[in-house]
Amino acid sequence: MKLGEIASLVNGEVIGPPHADDIEITGVSGILNAQEGDITFLSVGRYRKYLSECKASCVIVKEPIEGLHIAQLKVSNPHLAFAKLLEHFYIKPQEPMGISKNAIVSDRATIGEDVSILPFSYISDNVFIDSRTIIYPYVFIGPNSTIGRNCVIYPNVVLRENIKIGNRVIIHPGSVIGSDGFGYVFEEGTHYKIPQVGGVIIEDDVEIGSNVSIDRATTGDTIIGSSTKIDNLVQIAHNVTIGKNSIIIAQTGIAGSTEIGDFVTLAGQVGIVEHVKIESGTMIGAQSGVLGNLTKGVYSGSPVMPHREWLKAQAIFTKLPELYKNVRELEEKIKELERRCSK
Amino acid sequence: MKLGEIASLVNGEVIGPPHADDIEITGVSGILNAQEGDITFLSVGRYRKYLSECKASCVIVKEPIEGLHIAQLKVSNPHLAFAKLLEHFYIKPQEPMGISKNAIVSDRATIGEDVSILPFSYISDNVFIDSRTIIYPYVFIGPNSTIGRNCVIYPNVVLRENIKIGNRVIIHPGSVIGSDGFGYVFEEGTHYKIPQVGGVIIEDDVEIGSNVSIDRATTGDTIIGSSTKIDNLVQIAHNVTIGKNSIIIAQTGIAGSTEIGDFVTLAGQVGIVEHVKIESGTMIGAQSGVLGNLTKGVYSGSPVMPHREWLKAQAIFTKLPELYKNVRELEEKIKELERRCSK
Amino acid sequence: MKLGEIASLVNGEVIGPPHADDIEITGVSGILNAQEGDITFLSVGRYRKYLSECKASCVIVKEPIEGLHIAQLKVSNPHLAFAKLLEHFYIKPQEPMGISKNAIVSDRATIGEDVSILPFSYISDNVFIDSRTIIYPYVFIGPNSTIGRNCVIYPNVVLRENIKIGNRVIIHPGSVIGSDGFGYVFEEGTHYKIPQVGGVIIEDDVEIGSNVSIDRATTGDTIIGSSTKIDNLVQIAHNVTIGKNSIIIAQTGIAGSTEIGDFVTLAGQVGIVEHVKIESGTMIGAQSGVLGNLTKGVYSGSPVMPHREWLKAQAIFTKLPELYKNVRELEEKIKELERRCSK
Repeated sequence: MKLGEIASLVNGEVIGPPHADDIEITGVSGILNAQEGDITFLSVGRYRKYLSECKASCVIVKEPIEGLHIAQLKVSNPHLAFAKLLEHFYIKPQEPMGISKNAIVSDRATIGEDVSILPFSYISDNVFIDSRTIIYPYVFIGPNSTIGRNCVIYPNVVLRENIKIGNRVIIHPGSVIGSDGFGYVFEEGTHYKIPQVGGVIIEDDVEIGSNVSIDRATTGDTIIGSSTKIDNLVQIAHNVTIGKNSIIIAQTGIAGSTEIGDFVTLAGQVGIVEHVKIESGTMIGAQSGVLGNLTKGVYSGSPVMPHREWLKAQAIFTKLPELYKNVRELEEKIKELERRCSK
Repeated sequence: MKLGEIASLVNGEVIGPPHADDIEITGVSGILNAQEGDITFLSVGRYRKYLSECKASCVIVKEPIEGLHIAQLKVSNPHLAFAKLLEHFYIKPQEPMGISKNAIVSDRATIGEDVSILPFSYISDNVFIDSRTIIYPYVFIGPNSTIGRNCVIYPNVVLRENIKIGNRVIIHPGSVIGSDGFGYVFEEGTHYKIPQVGGVIIEDDVEIGSNVSIDRATTGDTIIGSSTKIDNLVQIAHNVTIGKNSIIIAQTGIAGSTEIGDFVTLAGQVGIVEHVKIESGTMIGAQSGVLGNLTKGVYSGSPVMPHREWLKAQAIFTKLPELYKNVRELEEKIKELERRCSK
Repeated sequence: MKLGEIASLVNGEVIGPPHADDIEITGVSGILNAQEGDITFLSVGRYRKYLSECKASCVIVKEPIEGLHIAQLKVSNPHLAFAKLLEHFYIKPQEPMGISKNAIVSDRATIGEDVSILPFSYISDNVFIDSRTIIYPYVFIGPNSTIGRNCVIYPNVVLRENIKIGNRVIIHPGSVIGSDGFGYVFEEGTHYKIPQVGGVIIEDDVEIGSNVSIDRATTGDTIIGSSTKIDNLVQIAHNVTIGKNSIIIAQTGIAGSTEIGDFVTLAGQVGIVEHVKIESGTMIGAQSGVLGNLTKGVYSGSPVMPHREWLKAQAIFTKLPELYKNVRELEEKIKELERRCSK
């Protein structure tokens, strides 16, 4: 594909040597392993130093870079252009594969057009799967669950009963949707199980990483709002609700009945206790611990505090031994002063 | 079901308008989404504000609430009554489903009465499964493992060889019991694997969440005591022993050979190092890190300290920048005093 | 097996009563549950107190212990001798089991000699599996993936497309290799998915625990170097590279494009942000958080600092309430002094 064609695909402008429009682009690659024929881009600013030795035939930029030896493609959002070109070069539309005779599909399930059900998957009674969705091997779908259209459900995913999955949802391998919430009541010296009879609703365009656990509600539903993206090994407890377009990074855990707003970012390994509310637009730093409601803001620490205050407190934390010594010295000096003054 | 009948089911007392005993109850629900015909309860005290607008036909209470517009059911343990009613209304006894012809069951396995073995499960040689246990699809049970009666083993659970599971054990999807402990000895510049030849014992009434990893012992057994409940994504290393009735919340990790007593609570994302002992009755706050033995008590922090001390230290942590500034100011003042006194 | 034969097997020297060479050893066991006939060893020094009551017939030691009632086997590395004896007594070479007719193996896959493919596994087009590798049930291997010789791939492991696994690699149940990296670009009010078209390379002698997630690269490869050992529930993001012989303990998370050197140890629940470099030989304490590049050293804390400094700062942290009180007292004393001096 010629660079000129690529430019029109991503609404970009070619900058470079004469006839740059005619450069043949054969692949898309990160800057560190780009080869001749590749188009590349700077995922982080400090990779710029690698540009001078880069073998790529073109680099995607937001603003032209002076004195560069290779062609440049100027676009308003380089990251987006990179994504679109990856898609264009490498993502082939999956041909529908039909329903494998090695799968078990209940007679009472309803399967839409062009759905692919691969071998060793198990579709229970009253399941509905909408058109063009792909069900990989070892996927278990429990009774009364529904899956929208154009979804990809990777191997070993378990959806238990009464789960509602929207359209264009991707669920990576090993994730479990609808395991029982962790609820017990203590009586007569032991833990009595509280039945978990609610469901889970996953709205449109949600993506769920691998080995994620999302528990079903005690009653009502655990809800993941549309376009929210969940990374690997995340724990979402019963009756949690997450709004739209939120980003939940790996190994984060959210305890029961907590409400997360829209456009919230939870960095990796965050923990949030039960029954709290996090306002829309809030950002929480990695490994933070949330013990109460949070209004919109940026937070860090365990327990969390406003991020700027945490930075300042943490800076002093590293100086604590010095501070402690200073205070001991001051005590001595004051004793000395008191002695002198009392004379 | 009439409210009067419900009252006798949970040993409660109906309080409310005349003929309240005759109110028809058709479901059980949380207070936020209860509808007419539902019986509900207050899972947390601060939901009390929602009661005035609640559409439920009855609320379960410990002490009668004055001036409420709906009927009340007074019981000694509302949470327990709620659990029992959920069970009564929604949990149907599962009919035995027999042994699927699409499962693989060794001729040398012993299967009890009314066991359900669903398609695509794999039962190895010398496995024993006791009566009324349910084995879901994609469950792998390795040689010489035994499972008690009335267990539920959800899809994608792996029990490797020599695992002993008691009665009424529930294991949620994706959990792995008996993967190799993480043991190596360093020799000649690399890591030499220490064979992990022990087993795992899961006692009666244990419940294990989804995507949990419980490693087999190097020699001897990793042991989970009866009625202990383990949440999702928990890591339990080789040769760990956990007592009875303990509560291990999501994403907690317990390193090798550590001993946890009875009635211990480990909140979410706790980490405990290897070879330590945690006394019975101990509670450890979320995200805490345990580096040594703990006598019975309540602990928080990483590394842990007694919870009350941690609260106090943490309160000062947030004031560290101020404290640092104060100390610098004191230094100045003392210098000034010293100057004056030396005159 | 006689103790004398065991001694020659592990290059050891028998110390003990006359004819100790003829003692019959029938098993290998930890010190707490050793029985007559067992050979045992001290995994940690403080277990030495149990030796006097130990029923084992022999204990493996580095230096002879005075006055012990049982035979001793002196070796240069007791832990290694213990590992080799466990192997000798308990690990039987697995007989090749062939290709199950209940597995699905593409006609276009290439399967080496003596490979075992158990029922319900799924081998896609253009997969290559080298000799003597074992594929357990419910293993999904995507198109164009290759697996070396003498590997063990436990049940429920998912290897998506374009994954390269070396020789003697062990992957425990439920692990996912090659799920999509977590990459989105924000555009027009929502998250646009960046296609993840790279692969994963797992080199020789790597062991991967259960329920681990290793994401495929955006472009290029996520790489795990030879002899690196990864514990359960670890998260490794897209384009991470880990060197050789590193040790990654349970529930650690490594964010995108981070580079970890050789012989690095990451203790449990460590979190490392994206795009940083950790030099070879670095050790990072449990629950630490890494926010930037690290030169070789020992680090702890969140965020990390050199371990010794962290120990000192943490020691003061526990005294913060006292320190705060001290500073307040000093302020009072200085005020008093100022009053006196101004007279």
